[in-house]
Amino acid sequence: MALRTLNAKNAAALDKDLMSVGAYSLDQLMELAGLSVSQAVYRVHPPSKGRKILVACGDGLVAARHLWHYGYQPTIYFPKKTSNELYDRLATQLKNLDIPFTEDFENSLKTSNHVVDAIFGFSFSGEVRDPFRDVIAAMENTKVPVLSVDAPSSWSIEDGPPETGPGAKFMPATLISLTAPKPLVKHFTGTHFVGGRFLPPSVAEKYDLDIPEYKGVDQIVEVSVEKGSKT
Amino acid sequence: MALRTLNAKNAAALDKDLMSVGAYSLDQLMELAGLSVSQAVYRVHPPSKGRKILVACGDGLVAARHLWHYGYQPTIYFPKKTSNELYDRLATQLKNLDIPFTEDFENSLKTSNHVVDAIFGFSFSGEVRDPFRDVIAAMENTKVPVLSVDAPSSWSIEDGPPETGPGAKFMPATLISLTAPKPLVKHFTGTHFVGGRFLPPSVAEKYDLDIPEYKGVDQIVEVSVEKGSKT
Repeated sequence: MALRTLNAKNAAALDKDLMSVGAYSLDQLMELAGLSVSQAVYRVHPPSKGRKILVACGDGLVAARHLWHYGYQPTIYFPKKTSNELYDRLATQLKNLDIPFTEDFENSLKTSNHVVDAIFGFSFSGEVRDPFRDVIAAMENTKVPVLSVDAPSSWSIEDGPPETGPGAKFMPATLISLTAPKPLVKHFTGTHFVGGRFLPPSVAEKYDLDIPEYKGVDQIVEVSVEKGSKT
Repeated sequence: MALRTLNAKNAAALDKDLMSVGAYSLDQLMELAGLSVSQAVYRVHPPSKGRKILVACGDGLVAARHLWHYGYQPTIYFPKKTSNELYDRLATQLKNLDIPFTEDFENSLKTSNHVVDAIFGFSFSGEVRDPFRDVIAAMENTKVPVLSVDAPSSWSIEDGPPETGPGAKFMPATLISLTAPKPLVKHFTGTHFVGGRFLPPSVAEKYDLDIPEYKGVDQIVEVSVEKGSKT
């Protein structure tokens, strides 16, 4: 099943709609997004494959909490210390579970069984800056499987991997697209999930999106996106 | 497995702790609670058994949204029109899905396949007032299966069913205890779930609670509570 995609500009507009006419709070959307990410990790990498999960950055904080409750041992890499009330609360929730935070991604990677790449989301554009250049290079070169959230970090939302520099050869094993796939998926060759089992049909229609067929109580569904699909 | 129980006073204190030192927002807790309720409904009454779910009251609003996304057709009975910013938002989320609201519980019950009773929660005490006396009598006498959230409505949190009046013979098919069972469970003879896969061990310890063994990515687990368990 090929799903229609959502470009960066529309992804931002859709999020705004969800929080205005949709009446969703950011807390709710973050919780549901993080829950989807945690379910995708469980699907591709159940705890029996190794419990040490390195979770990179803010949008992975909720996922890390759920992963802990599933029996994983997450470690959080979250170098950007911009003050953000929501992120502070989500981080406190993790600290209350004694989940460790690290500033040394590359060293933590050595003892990790899986990585969640939530460094940049659908709002990324431009150039990768320090300290993320080295982090992306590390993810690009490691044999530890990576699951990226919305976009493999460094990739252009519209055009996929950069031509040169860190990320040019970055192909995570798994991608989860929140709400809807972004145009970059036509460059992605791994396992692809969509999470967003809260999207009202009226919003899907406005943005010309498909609602995939979720099963049971799953918050995620595996999908394929054909190359050259409508963007 | 018999779980230790949480009395009404401690349940309120625990919620306060979750929102202060725990750093949870009410939005987050409501979302996780509602998700648990929706998963319990799916477990005991999958859509193949009938899609029409009558959801009574505010704490069921999140569950109703998830149930809709699972393919159910919920109807909301929510007569109390006290202004509450969070409930207003949750109600808008349902209206955006064209989920109907009713003021006539008994008539809606006739065409429903299942009921979610979230009328009173763990904070209930005293006497049942109108319009809920008739609603409880209807749930008591119907053959439509009922799932109650935290407490069968009208039951005392500590002592179980009232001796006389509406609810004296009310025994829902299913009960979901959020966070932990309340003392009333020793009077309950149906299927019992616990939902609360976010409870930090430090909080469980403070309130002398067990954390049950959840499976996979489930937000709920079926448990039994022995009569005469420690309260």
